Amino acid sequence: MANLLTQLPQRSIWHGWGDPEAKSVLPGYVWRALKLVRGVEPAAVNTSPVALDDVRLPEPAIDADALEALRSAVGAEHVSTERLDRVEHAGGKSYPDLYRLRAGDGSHAPDAVVFPGTSDEVVAVLRACAAHDVAVVPFGGGTSVVGGVDPVRGRFAAVISLDLRRLNRLLDLDETSMTAVLQPGMRGPEVEAALEPHGLTLGHFPQSFQQATVGGFLVTRSSGQASSGYGRFEENVVAVKLATPEGELSLGGRTPTSATAVGPKLIDVLIGSEGTLGVITEVTMQVHPAPTESEQATWAFPTFEQGLTAFRRLAQELGHGVMPDVSRLSDVEESLIVLAQASTGIPAMGYLGLRGMKHPCLGVFQWEDTDVADLAARRKRAERILKAEGGRKAPSSIAEHWMSHRFRGPYQRDHLMDRGIFVETLETATMWSNIPHLYAKVVEAIHASVGEKAVVQAHVSHLYDGGASLYFTFFSAAETDPLAQWSRVKCTVGDAIAAAGGTISHHHAVGTDHRPWVGEEIGDLGVRILRAVKNELDPSGILNPGKLLPDAGNTPDSAASPGPAERD
Amino acid sequence: MANLLTQLPQRSIWHGWGDPEAKSVLPGYVWRALKLVRGVEPAAVNTSPVALDDVRLPEPAIDADALEALRSAVGAEHVSTERLDRVEHAGGKSYPDLYRLRAGDGSHAPDAVVFPGTSDEVVAVLRACAAHDVAVVPFGGGTSVVGGVDPVRGRFAAVISLDLRRLNRLLDLDETSMTAVLQPGMRGPEVEAALEPHGLTLGHFPQSFQQATVGGFLVTRSSGQASSGYGRFEENVVAVKLATPEGELSLGGRTPTSATAVGPKLIDVLIGSEGTLGVITEVTMQVHPAPTESEQATWAFPTFEQGLTAFRRLAQELGHGVMPDVSRLSDVEESLIVLAQASTGIPAMGYLGLRGMKHPCLGVFQWEDTDVADLAARRKRAERILKAEGGRKAPSSIAEHWMSHRFRGPYQRDHLMDRGIFVETLETATMWSNIPHLYAKVVEAIHASVGEKAVVQAHVSHLYDGGASLYFTFFSAAETDPLAQWSRVKCTVGDAIAAAGGTISHHHAVGTDHRPWVGEEIGDLGVRILRAVKNELDPSGILNPGKLLPDAGNTPDSAASPGPAERD
Repeated sequence: MANLLTQLPQRSIWHGWGDPEAKSVLPGYVWRALKLVRGVEPAAVNTSPVALDDVRLPEPAIDADALEALRSAVGAEHVSTERLDRVEHAGGKSYPDLYRLRAGDGSHAPDAVVFPGTSDEVVAVLRACAAHDVAVVPFGGGTSVVGGVDPVRGRFAAVISLDLRRLNRLLDLDETSMTAVLQPGMRGPEVEAALEPHGLTLGHFPQSFQQATVGGFLVTRSSGQASSGYGRFEENVVAVKLATPEGELSLGGRTPTSATAVGPKLIDVLIGSEGTLGVITEVTMQVHPAPTESEQATWAFPTFEQGLTAFRRLAQELGHGVMPDVSRLSDVEESLIVLAQASTGIPAMGYLGLRGMKHPCLGVFQWEDTDVADLAARRKRAERILKAEGGRKAPSSIAEHWMSHRFRGPYQRDHLMDRGIFVETLETATMWSNIPHLYAKVVEAIHASVGEKAVVQAHVSHLYDGGASLYFTFFSAAETDPLAQWSRVKCTVGDAIAAAGGTISHHHAVGTDHRPWVGEEIGDLGVRILRAVKNELDPSGILNPGKLLPDAGNTPDSAASPGPAERD
Repeated sequence: MANLLTQLPQRSIWHGWGDPEAKSVLPGYVWRALKLVRGVEPAAVNTSPVALDDVRLPEPAIDADALEALRSAVGAEHVSTERLDRVEHAGGKSYPDLYRLRAGDGSHAPDAVVFPGTSDEVVAVLRACAAHDVAVVPFGGGTSVVGGVDPVRGRFAAVISLDLRRLNRLLDLDETSMTAVLQPGMRGPEVEAALEPHGLTLGHFPQSFQQATVGGFLVTRSSGQASSGYGRFEENVVAVKLATPEGELSLGGRTPTSATAVGPKLIDVLIGSEGTLGVITEVTMQVHPAPTESEQATWAFPTFEQGLTAFRRLAQELGHGVMPDVSRLSDVEESLIVLAQASTGIPAMGYLGLRGMKHPCLGVFQWEDTDVADLAARRKRAERILKAEGGRKAPSSIAEHWMSHRFRGPYQRDHLMDRGIFVETLETATMWSNIPHLYAKVVEAIHASVGEKAVVQAHVSHLYDGGASLYFTFFSAAETDPLAQWSRVKCTVGDAIAAAGGTISHHHAVGTDHRPWVGEEIGDLGVRILRAVKNELDPSGILNPGKLLPDAGNTPDSAASPGPAERD
């Protein structure tokens, strides 16, 4: 486990996910099953990405004075207009981002990429950009799947990508208070490697863990797979330093997060701000004793509804720290894939069939602890509930396989895209009483917009006292214009989520793609609050234009109409 | 226990705390001990409050048009300019508030008191006030000890107190998601009485529980004695409706608190806003299964430092839901009082002395659970830590006495003031590594400003992974000008807290009294964010003037200089 959490892979290749050495393909039997069950089959001819040199890249639009100012801010060697740098920063890792680059469309690339080495250099870059009419897109791991790091130029003469990879050090550690001061460019494994010698962990393991960074986790309100154990990222933020065009904002640090009553918790204005208010230069995080023990379990439920009841009881009766650290309930469709991918899956299907579970829903669990007996007691309490709600134990190897492959999922998208498959994920959350309704409405909307010949699978993976998240993956044959297909699907499903009372994003954030629904979710006055804060910290508006905030005049009533197509 | 939590006492009398029937006096032997140990003795003559008719009250400054507009907003019978109403709303329950009223100074009274009965009426009142140049001070239970409900007129022609007591209903209950929709004027026992039949609890029990309201808990970032079990109030807020002069702001409700990544958590801008942004009209709260089991324990530690280490380990190794729901560690001085007030205290002192604890520090604990075995397991884990850090069991009756008298503390202040004693409490919080330093500096500053002949006692009662709160109570003979004494002490101790790295308030909030330190704590840009949000929601500035926000031009550098005296 330690190895999985501290080993740092290569940064993502420009046209896909992660270290290209670690490419992942679907086994032939899965392809055959997909065709048989759902009629989904690969394109006759592979659609590989174009070569780097074939990406059509506009000349950098940035003028010589602006470039010179940036060079004096960070040193000439840390300002790049090279092809590879520009292409690597042309977007995040959404389906449209990747589709465009694979097809050779580099029109979204930034005019330059800047790599600051200190907080002061970040401030100097912001000053230079404000002075030279240049938009700034902060860039961490570049894993946004909602357009959050797309270099939108807005009304500015040029746009740069501000890559924080050089800010990757652990600055301080308070072992008594168990807090760590981290630079924003540290990727997940870099944080864990820095904390491991001290017996500590950040406990934040989203699927993007290997590539994404501390700053990105913070500004997107990230939530990791073990959120039931360690909490969401935001729950562990103790202090933040933010470089803004108006100077440095430093919040928190005197007390643990929330342990003060001095006015509103302003740190929560920075958390989730998606680079629109400033650039994170330092984060103090609550860290936790690293677990010495871990156990996995797989349980099967006769229906999704029974599984949901069991999961609700885990959250409401056990709570954080007692419930499993990882709890993930797959619906019928996803359970088939989970079973198919685990080596023990096929025999397990037979076993469950004999127990009357024709269409089992699988729950995978992990408990982590520093004490064997405490772990056993927690497990016993959880399993008492799982059993009472109709669950039956299945081979733990299924959960073990899932846990050891949990950062591998995104690699498969590259393979699916190679084979001409349209593939997308989206996530939402709602109160427990609304989950069955929201689930049904989203599945219905996906089928309505993608077609009946689509694989649609879902899981619940973040549990709260009041509700849970729902995460959907769906794929189908790509249409002739996959970007138009994507826009149509995104609009239909987004509207369905909003109408069914879900949030438009549980942990992917807003970026460009979810802007049409922000007004509906926080109301006109909510949008006005965000704009007022932005005007205060970034009066010239250079910071990450076109993200998070709906366009002016985009009132809640008309929110859904422009649709995600506006990003193009 | 149920009785203690659901029984609703009379509202506080205008010159003191709580139901006058429940007055509480210090036993003679405690007075004798105070004199013996600390040289503190009561004044020769009682200084009782003046009669209501002797309170010097200015004529209401509100003009007839404004009054008429208010009457048509809420009905004539719900707008009062009566003496008792105005005096009852002349301030909160801080020492200066009570001192002034007891002495017959009613100059701070509002011009009128308005009692709206619906959310719409709240909106109508705000409109009327904006139109007629009238400041509005939202008023819940009136328990602020930092001037938060003082009717500061600011630059307005008149000021009203907006009493929310008629908004006291449970509006909705979702038993699946375990959420309750509450009106803001419900007092603590009203909430518990409404939830009890459903086997649910809010779990929020600050010392002000019997008088304070849901709206007040929210806007002051309240924290209850069982925060280790149920979390701070703010951690359980799911949705808020806020009436503002610009319309209604409705945030949250689609998901559990924090279970979304749609931009910053704007609810946290309303939480802690102290009535400066709008008036809370509805709150959806996460509620919890009501415990069926509870146990108390008392432990003694040879030193405060050892107790602190034990408490830190409870928080860091057990965490929410496993650690005791209530954990309170008294320093040497406070332990003497706790022992003196419990009937078993005197024999316990002898017992502890025999065990080598000449100056024991007492820890009182309560565990609550819905399962006997689970409670026993939690207790065992906690007691393993307490023992390992040098703690020894003391009679549980001490903890039981404390638990059953936990809402009685504030009554004793009235008695002390009757006897001419200067008495004040203040609270802060900091990281674990800084607690010993902050504790020493605050004790030093209190003695420096109040005098060596002062009783200064403290406890730790809110535990977090990263740190804890410190709560100080101190008393001494009042000087000839107790208000000047209070200002001097407040300035000195506030400066000491800020300099030693603590927060100026852990759960009392800012009000008028803590404004001088806000700029130091959140920085110039932090203050600018608060102002920008206020300007957006309350452009005419009628909402609770003189609270929370430092005066314009009050920069961090000069923050501490004006001092709390500015409220006068």
